[in-house]
Amino acid sequence: MSAQHSPAVQFARNLIRCPSVTPAEGGALDYLEKLLGGAGLKIDRVTFTDSDTPNVENLFASIGSGSPHFVFAGHTDVVPPGDEADWSHAPFAGDIVGGTLFGRGAVDMKGGVACFAAAALDFLEANGPEFGGKISFLITGDEEGPAVNGTVKLLQWAEEQGHRFDACIVGEPTNPNELGDAIKVGRRGSLSGTVVVTGVQGHAAYPENANNPIPGLMRLMSALDEVAFDGGNDRFQPSNLEIVTFDVGNPAFNVIPAKAEARFNIRFNDTWSLDTLKAKIEGILSDAASDDLEWSVVFRRDASESFLTRDETLIKALSNSVEAITGRTPALTTGGGTSDARFVKNYCPVVEFGLVGQTMHKVDECVALADVDGLTAIYRKFLDDYFQEAKGG
Amino acid sequence: MSAQHSPAVQFARNLIRCPSVTPAEGGALDYLEKLLGGAGLKIDRVTFTDSDTPNVENLFASIGSGSPHFVFAGHTDVVPPGDEADWSHAPFAGDIVGGTLFGRGAVDMKGGVACFAAAALDFLEANGPEFGGKISFLITGDEEGPAVNGTVKLLQWAEEQGHRFDACIVGEPTNPNELGDAIKVGRRGSLSGTVVVTGVQGHAAYPENANNPIPGLMRLMSALDEVAFDGGNDRFQPSNLEIVTFDVGNPAFNVIPAKAEARFNIRFNDTWSLDTLKAKIEGILSDAASDDLEWSVVFRRDASESFLTRDETLIKALSNSVEAITGRTPALTTGGGTSDARFVKNYCPVVEFGLVGQTMHKVDECVALADVDGLTAIYRKFLDDYFQEAKGG
Repeated sequence: MSAQHSPAVQFARNLIRCPSVTPAEGGALDYLEKLLGGAGLKIDRVTFTDSDTPNVENLFASIGSGSPHFVFAGHTDVVPPGDEADWSHAPFAGDIVGGTLFGRGAVDMKGGVACFAAAALDFLEANGPEFGGKISFLITGDEEGPAVNGTVKLLQWAEEQGHRFDACIVGEPTNPNELGDAIKVGRRGSLSGTVVVTGVQGHAAYPENANNPIPGLMRLMSALDEVAFDGGNDRFQPSNLEIVTFDVGNPAFNVIPAKAEARFNIRFNDTWSLDTLKAKIEGILSDAASDDLEWSVVFRRDASESFLTRDETLIKALSNSVEAITGRTPALTTGGGTSDARFVKNYCPVVEFGLVGQTMHKVDECVALADVDGLTAIYRKFLDDYFQEAKGG
Repeated sequence: MSAQHSPAVQFARNLIRCPSVTPAEGGALDYLEKLLGGAGLKIDRVTFTDSDTPNVENLFASIGSGSPHFVFAGHTDVVPPGDEADWSHAPFAGDIVGGTLFGRGAVDMKGGVACFAAAALDFLEANGPEFGGKISFLITGDEEGPAVNGTVKLLQWAEEQGHRFDACIVGEPTNPNELGDAIKVGRRGSLSGTVVVTGVQGHAAYPENANNPIPGLMRLMSALDEVAFDGGNDRFQPSNLEIVTFDVGNPAFNVIPAKAEARFNIRFNDTWSLDTLKAKIEGILSDAASDDLEWSVVFRRDASESFLTRDETLIKALSNSVEAITGRTPALTTGGGTSDARFVKNYCPVVEFGLVGQTMHKVDECVALADVDGLTAIYRKFLDDYFQEAKGG
């Protein structure tokens, strides 16, 4: 450990050196337990299990008393590095070269966890454990995997332990280009489904004795693809449907198949609830099918509603901190994929803000040391302002 | 062998008892060699080989001298019986119950071969081997299989041996409902191809960074599916295209795939040659793609041209024989799938006429004994008339 690096950079490097590819703990939670426990936080290690998915370790850490209760949510698991030979720097070495820290998880999101830990420890050192509120860490090892034994169960567990959160920041890399670009204040919902058209198998030379399901399915999927669900609004981009696969699997050129199946995924905004969107899709398909198709649609159970966080105290405190440290006014956005914020929003207002996402999931994932220190400063100022506002407000 | 059955029925039953599922000879050609050789025909047994496909035995039998040279083409291989427990009568037993002969190949086409053998032997017994022309049998064991080591090579072999044919009947089951329904005087061509659209893979939540190939391929395939290639004519039904498969194979609901592929098969009439049809298809796809799709079409090499046989002597002699024996005027058709006639037509005029096809390839394949005797009488009268016409004409 070189003394010339800030605590946040040292924490990030130490976390990167734990090979915690989902579902492996890899020493990352042990490290946090020691780091946060050593600073006086009460640590709970909780392992969750479920059928057909690996057991996963999680960590909950908490300090303080009274309200408000602020929680930072994140994950220490990372996606696999792929072929390590493709990396300029070994993915779990934590090399620092020319002001940049390399390694899997540098931005997604061991870096974010390290920044928040450094900010919280500095805040506690300045204010003591009875600073007038609570700070907790909700850290999972199952964000990049099935997300079954992670945040969703850890939130439930915390509620059962009596924890009630007032606000949350998820430290995912939200900035497209530069630190300070964007705070995510909501997410689109996601709905997937499978459409099947059934026909009658037969010989390609005798189409009069068969009923080809492929043109019918193309008609249904074109109808879905062409519809404009909405025009978006000031906080959300327009809802968008993608046909993600279309399969028949018929190996024979002289056989008309019996069945064709396609799948779709919609990222939708707050114009829709899951119920109104499902009804809309069923209506489009039904109209396109008219009376001459035998078809069905089945929606996947892993759907999520869209949400928009309207907590002005939380958003303003974070936004002001970003602006104070970076000089940029962050955009308040709702685009992109899902995150564990979709689980947190059922418990308390939640926003997302972290590092710059450009290298996430890629070879040579890395973070500028300046960004690590910048994000730490933002989180640090946020804690000051957030708890100050609670006292003063 | 029960004496009460006609020779044709006995021949058919003996052939059914040979388990000659492609590529197995099963004793069927041995039986024909003995039967036809015993009646004075010169027999050649020829085995063909090729890479990636089993060796297959074939039989050529011939008698007579001078012209015309008439050849009967058929096959003794059969499709598999499937689960024999589903059959009321064991598929290779040759059971005769209530005027019906049961077994795999009863109509497709051991029955047809038996009828022609019985007709030819009777004709030879009446007229002697120097009847004023030649009769040959072109019998393959690779019609239901890859058709690589069968008729196509046997025809080439026969040509190399100096055989020149003047006319051919293929004894496939051409009658949809009753003996005498239809003579096939041509066949549609068949052309298959694969269309690929290439896009850019990406996350379903970030469609702006991806390019989904599925809507584009649906557009191309819809354009192919909707075109009316032609209206047909007095001998051919309209050309017809079927999309036989459409595949992406993407297992992930949150990923936009990089590639989509569909395959089609066209059965086309004599409005088109393979060349003009390929150009038409390329034109349709090109128009539908406009400039915004990266696409390709690859045609399969196993395509066949359509053909129409115009030999009035052959057609009239067979048609009159059918009418004389059955009282029905056979329709002259060109519908349905391909047969080995597509190879024979390159050597001499060819038509197809055989038993009733209803049970072909099915469980409990069977033939009415009356049809076996009827078809034998038709072939017998045809031989009389055809060679009479050649002498008198």
